[in-house]
Amino acid sequence: MSPVSIQTVGIIGTGVIGASWTALFLAKGLKVIVTDPAPGAEDRLREYLQSHCSEVPNAQVSLKDCLSNLTFVKELDALLGKVDLIQENGPERLDFKRRLFAHLDENTPEHVLIASSSSGLPSSEFVTDCKKNPARILIGHPFNPPHLVPLVEVVPHSATGSEYVDAAYEFYRGLGKEPVLVKQETPGFIANRLQAAVCAEAYSLISRGVVSAEDLDKTMTSGLGLRWALTGPIMTNTLGGGGSFTHFMDHLGPALQGWLGDMEKHKFDFSSRQVESVKDKVDDWVSHLDLKEIEANRDTFLGDLVANKQK
Amino acid sequence: MSPVSIQTVGIIGTGVIGASWTALFLAKGLKVIVTDPAPGAEDRLREYLQSHCSEVPNAQVSLKDCLSNLTFVKELDALLGKVDLIQENGPERLDFKRRLFAHLDENTPEHVLIASSSSGLPSSEFVTDCKKNPARILIGHPFNPPHLVPLVEVVPHSATGSEYVDAAYEFYRGLGKEPVLVKQETPGFIANRLQAAVCAEAYSLISRGVVSAEDLDKTMTSGLGLRWALTGPIMTNTLGGGGSFTHFMDHLGPALQGWLGDMEKHKFDFSSRQVESVKDKVDDWVSHLDLKEIEANRDTFLGDLVANKQK
Repeated sequence: MSPVSIQTVGIIGTGVIGASWTALFLAKGLKVIVTDPAPGAEDRLREYLQSHCSEVPNAQVSLKDCLSNLTFVKELDALLGKVDLIQENGPERLDFKRRLFAHLDENTPEHVLIASSSSGLPSSEFVTDCKKNPARILIGHPFNPPHLVPLVEVVPHSATGSEYVDAAYEFYRGLGKEPVLVKQETPGFIANRLQAAVCAEAYSLISRGVVSAEDLDKTMTSGLGLRWALTGPIMTNTLGGGGSFTHFMDHLGPALQGWLGDMEKHKFDFSSRQVESVKDKVDDWVSHLDLKEIEANRDTFLGDLVANKQK
Repeated sequence: MSPVSIQTVGIIGTGVIGASWTALFLAKGLKVIVTDPAPGAEDRLREYLQSHCSEVPNAQVSLKDCLSNLTFVKELDALLGKVDLIQENGPERLDFKRRLFAHLDENTPEHVLIASSSSGLPSSEFVTDCKKNPARILIGHPFNPPHLVPLVEVVPHSATGSEYVDAAYEFYRGLGKEPVLVKQETPGFIANRLQAAVCAEAYSLISRGVVSAEDLDKTMTSGLGLRWALTGPIMTNTLGGGGSFTHFMDHLGPALQGWLGDMEKHKFDFSSRQVESVKDKVDDWVSHLDLKEIEANRDTFLGDLVANKQK
């Protein structure tokens, strides 16, 4: 069965990610039915929405309308027949997800898209007990916080139907998100792998005393990151090659290989000695900072940046 | 001898980097004396400055004043006695730089700071023939284009005097740049190493067909890069650990190691087969794009972003 136009979204789990998804969906005018078994979850969610719905870049409805489009239900089963798409944000435990997805699959109409926010578990591992229509299950992995950062990694398992992949992609895109398609299930998908590559080298440089933790971060926020907010690594290479990626690779590939060789030699090994050395240096720096203020500034700036890019 | 307050800058070489440095120094109200032996260099530079001086974030003087503070001299020796700092942007050839720096050192007053924009050669290798005061020589490696991107990597050699390191650091900072101190000469310094780490994994994912070149870049420009424009990898980890880097490492370190292990298994090997595969996929994508427009948009956006961050 084909997926249908999505009017009502079901949210399972209202931790950091689930609450932020809820703010996004509401601000874009969707009806959202939410469930979370944790005590006090509804109050915490409503409080979160009060301060965050209006941060959504290019929000389409007022805060008042956001809140009136929200329904919180105590029992998961109360939402299963009423939604066109489920965005799942439960704990990252395989046994839990396997049982949950078997239940979701069995108790929702066949056409309902089911997306998991999982960052760690590939969906092939938790659809194993789904009998009805596992083809409509996939990963829609957001980048935190989803109501501000456009990226969503769409990761089908090998039996996800292409019509459901397309429907998820278009759904997210219609909300102003920037979906990317991860064509093979790969540990860490794309973003976390690129991030891990940077972190490993960052930890090595800091633990070896080549650069302070503060200056390492500044290298990113005042240089690389500014560029990468606008042109990705491949386009940056291409422009650096005078408009030709081939030219870049032919002329700068050898330098790149040289640096990578030296990085390999000094690879961060996650030994407790190296880990402690980085922790000490980072803690020394961070202890002088007002993290609440940094986080608030980041979110304001991120919202402006995204709204500006969408213009 | 101590470095003095810097009023007049000498620029050697007006390629892409030298011209952009010139625009920055002029827009910040400095006098700049420039030399470049290439035929037509002066005309090209003046044309460049006409369109780029006004892009400098928080420029302090008008385009007219910029141009009246510029002197172009045909002979290098004509500027050596008249400047407080030299920013060198010559070809990246060791024999050339060795001769040039010996000449600069011999023919400038001892207190003049001499900074090289070199991205590849460590200054320890090209100060070998400097007899007078090699302690005032260091690397001031910008990020392209220097008139827009704040990052400058300040890299002393082992005999650079700390007073000169401090003077260079303060000079760049006074212009609105964000200097970082690279405490040991390291191939690629900091930024190029972090960039190489990302590129190697990007090439691997693209060549293996896990993600398209376009979506790889989108992962950066719609997710990671947006964050990294504001908080670097270490602060991102710290905020991700609820305000504690130690918490992050203890809880997410193992996942990171798992991803890095898988990345190691699928490491891009720069074999011609893998290189051709990436080139083909990138060229397919890029051939449909208007690169001139992308570059112009990037520069406008970069200028706005930097001006906004400085506010």
